[in-house]
Amino acid sequence: MAHMTSTPQPGTPQPGAPRPSRLDPAVAARLKRSADGLLPAIAQQYDTGEVLMLGWMDDEALHRTLTTGRCTYWSRSRQEYWVKGDTSGHFQHVKSVALDCDADTVLVRVDQVGAACHTGDRTCFDSDVLPLAQ
Amino acid sequence: MAHMTSTPQPGTPQPGAPRPSRLDPAVAARLKRSADGLLPAIAQQYDTGEVLMLGWMDDEALHRTLTTGRCTYWSRSRQEYWVKGDTSGHFQHVKSVALDCDADTVLVRVDQVGAACHTGDRTCFDSDVLPLAQ
Repeated sequence: MAHMTSTPQPGTPQPGAPRPSRLDPAVAARLKRSADGLLPAIAQQYDTGEVLMLGWMDDEALHRTLTTGRCTYWSRSRQEYWVKGDTSGHFQHVKSVALDCDADTVLVRVDQVGAACHTGDRTCFDSDVLPLAQ
Repeated sequence: MAHMTSTPQPGTPQPGAPRPSRLDPAVAARLKRSADGLLPAIAQQYDTGEVLMLGWMDDEALHRTLTTGRCTYWSRSRQEYWVKGDTSGHFQHVKSVALDCDADTVLVRVDQVGAACHTGDRTCFDSDVLPLAQ
């Protein structure tokens, strides 16, 4: 820790405080985050319209998604950033990013390489359809 | 409060406890809810694939969505159930409901009457596209 400075680096979790971020402050000021500082982020296949998955983004994950061309999320379970595809090769190449009318949800249109779901399904919503009773 | 009973009715918020629900216990047992007992619910136009909006469901909202044919959410700000369209006429007629692979997100395919967004836009993601820098 000899080189630790007083300025936290992006990606360093700060318990009880928002993680530092390089996101445009004008965008950051508009975001309405959940209590844990995150926004739900919907990934949609840009041409077919398939809803692929839902992940979570903090400000820095949104910044990386906007600037690297690859969808980046915050893992709530591992408390770290993850680039979709870094381990599977199933990258999500970013086509567009939009906030909703309340600035509390992100919609990322992507070109999904291979399966979006860790089970091997194309989307995370393919295998658990609930019965309607009406 | 003369007629209050010891059994809470669906829709009665119980601070610190899950709200009572008529959801199939086999489904309820699989859900992975956020700290506030909710699941994000994505509404998608069933034929065009448009992502219309994201709302939140607790167990009872999911039950009502599965059984009434109309998409029902839990309002975090008002702490009450709301049927999309009850005030605007812009109902979401339910075509199918699916959970994702982690059972922590709902995808509802609907037939949206009119505009999904309270601003009058067709979807809640139409007007706030963020610039990509790559």
